[in-house]
Amino acid sequence: MTQSIAKWDMFEVSFAGPSDGNPFLDVTLEGFFTQYARTVRVPGFYDGNGTFRLRFMPDNEGVWSFTTKSSASELDGQSGSFAVTAPRPDNHGPVQVANRYHFAHADGTPFLSFGTTCYAWTHQPLSEQDKTLHTLARTRFNKLRMGVFPKDYPYNVNEPLHDVYQRDADGELDFDRPNPESFRHFENQVKALGDMGIQADIIMLHPYDRWGYSGMSETQDYRYFAYLTARLGAYHNVWWSLANEYDFLLDTKPMHQWDRYFHIIEENDPYGHLRSIHNGDPEANYDHRKAWVTHACIQNWDVKRTVEWRNAYGKPIVNDEPEYEGNINPSWGNITAEELTHRFWITAMRGGYAGHGETYSHPEDLIWWAKGGELHGQAWQRIAFLRSIMEESVSTGFEPINGGAGWPWSRVSGARDGDTTMIYLGEHQPVTWVSGLPQDDRKYEVDLIDTWNMTITAAKIIPAPENHPTRHGAIVRQRKPDAAFAVELPGKPYLALRVRTVRKG
Amino acid sequence: MTQSIAKWDMFEVSFAGPSDGNPFLDVTLEGFFTQYARTVRVPGFYDGNGTFRLRFMPDNEGVWSFTTKSSASELDGQSGSFAVTAPRPDNHGPVQVANRYHFAHADGTPFLSFGTTCYAWTHQPLSEQDKTLHTLARTRFNKLRMGVFPKDYPYNVNEPLHDVYQRDADGELDFDRPNPESFRHFENQVKALGDMGIQADIIMLHPYDRWGYSGMSETQDYRYFAYLTARLGAYHNVWWSLANEYDFLLDTKPMHQWDRYFHIIEENDPYGHLRSIHNGDPEANYDHRKAWVTHACIQNWDVKRTVEWRNAYGKPIVNDEPEYEGNINPSWGNITAEELTHRFWITAMRGGYAGHGETYSHPEDLIWWAKGGELHGQAWQRIAFLRSIMEESVSTGFEPINGGAGWPWSRVSGARDGDTTMIYLGEHQPVTWVSGLPQDDRKYEVDLIDTWNMTITAAKIIPAPENHPTRHGAIVRQRKPDAAFAVELPGKPYLALRVRTVRKG
Repeated sequence: MTQSIAKWDMFEVSFAGPSDGNPFLDVTLEGFFTQYARTVRVPGFYDGNGTFRLRFMPDNEGVWSFTTKSSASELDGQSGSFAVTAPRPDNHGPVQVANRYHFAHADGTPFLSFGTTCYAWTHQPLSEQDKTLHTLARTRFNKLRMGVFPKDYPYNVNEPLHDVYQRDADGELDFDRPNPESFRHFENQVKALGDMGIQADIIMLHPYDRWGYSGMSETQDYRYFAYLTARLGAYHNVWWSLANEYDFLLDTKPMHQWDRYFHIIEENDPYGHLRSIHNGDPEANYDHRKAWVTHACIQNWDVKRTVEWRNAYGKPIVNDEPEYEGNINPSWGNITAEELTHRFWITAMRGGYAGHGETYSHPEDLIWWAKGGELHGQAWQRIAFLRSIMEESVSTGFEPINGGAGWPWSRVSGARDGDTTMIYLGEHQPVTWVSGLPQDDRKYEVDLIDTWNMTITAAKIIPAPENHPTRHGAIVRQRKPDAAFAVELPGKPYLALRVRTVRKG
Repeated sequence: MTQSIAKWDMFEVSFAGPSDGNPFLDVTLEGFFTQYARTVRVPGFYDGNGTFRLRFMPDNEGVWSFTTKSSASELDGQSGSFAVTAPRPDNHGPVQVANRYHFAHADGTPFLSFGTTCYAWTHQPLSEQDKTLHTLARTRFNKLRMGVFPKDYPYNVNEPLHDVYQRDADGELDFDRPNPESFRHFENQVKALGDMGIQADIIMLHPYDRWGYSGMSETQDYRYFAYLTARLGAYHNVWWSLANEYDFLLDTKPMHQWDRYFHIIEENDPYGHLRSIHNGDPEANYDHRKAWVTHACIQNWDVKRTVEWRNAYGKPIVNDEPEYEGNINPSWGNITAEELTHRFWITAMRGGYAGHGETYSHPEDLIWWAKGGELHGQAWQRIAFLRSIMEESVSTGFEPINGGAGWPWSRVSGARDGDTTMIYLGEHQPVTWVSGLPQDDRKYEVDLIDTWNMTITAAKIIPAPENHPTRHGAIVRQRKPDAAFAVELPGKPYLALRVRTVRKG
């Protein structure tokens, strides 16, 4: 009987091979997966104890067969076949760029990115990792930023659960020998996230290090990228994030290395998972226009500039660090829940995607942003509320009204997707509002959304104010009432409007 | 007995001259005011009914004499002299640029600009104008933006108190004949402000017009600028603002005219009063680097960019429209009092000066921003509080810490003047803080300022956290604790810190 797996799940086959010398360096292995006239090259990897593996994520139903090529005779010329069935209902396939500034799963389901951050959660005690998964199950985050390496940083001084590389006889880390146990654990957590519908945004390098991982040689880095890609590429929910704050590593890893890391991923990931890179200094963005970058990953508090970044890069904007809700000392980690909620709405209503993190001071330094565990804040619920509202209307992705330029859209935020218009007023508190309301002859209803209290009520529709017929009005007509109707508002901040055509009851 | 006036007060002398024809166009008059070897040329003006006037603001004590030159024989060769005494205690002289990014009166007293806006207050009924002055006396605003011409705009549809030009036999405005009554009234209000220590930031042109003032010919505009300068230049508290939203007038008044307006002011104002020009579209700033612009007048909500503007223009930054507190329909006029207070603090703590306006919806459209009258909001008291705090410490002007660039000063705001350091945390709510605290060996005390509740209490000083001695710490040492002490904070937003050396009790 043929083995069978569902489309976008992972097919894995293992082989016994040589274990002497250093198989990580000495042995090559590739698989060639074929269906009809199509063949996909897939890199294999050494998993320790003489075991080599090939992993493959099929993107088409039906029978696939494979053969292997290897420098080791016992791994060379192996072959087999398996059947691919329809995807499981909750697996929509890997996320890709869609409609230039947005994302969708491979089956076309729009993916609205609502990420959070637990940099080193897979390196905490297992009981803490369970807590993290339990917490994530209660939230509506669908992307998690997480590092392969452990983290050494203020509030992060504990030793990791596993060494990521093996130790030699002297107890020194040997950066030519990955530790399979560590990678297996990491992969299990990536899978656990995938089963929950959460994308694993895998941070491959970072500078917060006391063990030496950030100081591997150029060659070791390249091998590391290839190894990681070979092991993890077949997981449907993987995103590649080359680094956190890559610019703080530029003193030892110059720019050509970063370009090369991207290429190594492309060479070893036949599925084309999303690829991005994250800056520290807001002036040090990597050039996200480069062809191998799929979307711009931004760290920037000035979220009203989202349209500027869309225009600069022509790609989806994921602002993963618009600062974190919390109260710790560093100023990237101590904004209020109200402010982070505000920044999520502004970003979303200007055609971008924001990311969450939480950094509340804790007596044992158990802080969500790095270690996971429990959430203590108030933004995450509001972010879930925003996601639910956007999901109700998403078709191709919310595009900023007026390109986000022009009056009044530099001041307030508004976006449209299909027949739905949403306007986020934020720090503005008008008692009437008219800009951006549709002016065709269909009948509309307007919902008033309280973004903090998470309520949705009908807004009162009133006649639009008269256009003021003077010279100034003639010059800047776009500044004048531009719709046949207006709405009456309660005159308080942090409200949004949702405008939709009246639904047949 | 010689007439005598105080330094920086206004000396005025009038002459009977021709009243036939059009003396505004036909008769030239200049005065030459001399003390020792110095002679100052001062333009005269026609005030109607055959009366011509010369006004002069002496900037030096002692005897001055003058002679006149005129195209009319009865005005030519007149002369006289007068004595100038020490200035009145509350007249510190006109405000000038000081220390590149700041202002000071002519006697050296620092001028911290805290402006507000009543565009058309001098065109309202006199009882409303009295209310405006009465309100201003209760506030601590020291600059008022006010237009020469009446205003036609939403919420502003009433006829003005006076025509600014005379009407001809057919009732049409004659833009070759200014209406002296209108100008005399305007001047009286400028003087009333001066007596209260308030700078009159005189807006010479604007596009909100139904009477035709914004459509005068190029020649008429040039004559208007010269006339206004001749009449008003001798008031110590005058600032020249060429236009409100000049870019909305570019279709009929091209750029070379705006440059020429500046030059006409310079030719007719021997005192060098401050000169600026105000934009509508944030992308349409006039090039404030031009030599004849004394300071950059900005309309922009994105106040954390204040340092960027300082660097771009190299002049004082007066952000007169960081949006207004209110609740009217247009989004420049409906931010919360909290948000405007926040923007004032951010601007001030990045080395700029913000401006206030209030736009609360009113059943009779009596809105402070255009008509003056009464204030209904909550920002003005907080702005007064900020001014008082800054005045306590000002010496040469508050300069942004770290030039405002670099971490964490792109996120939070901090400034120093002399031995005083102030840090505004805004939307940040750390429970401890260390960045920017001085690290020399003097003894410091720290005040905790609640910017909304307007309280000042002693902050608890605690030891600085340890520097985290890892690779990342080594790369970006400036991101680490940089002082020997830190402060404990209550973990709420909108707080500021003031750090001063311990005063001898």
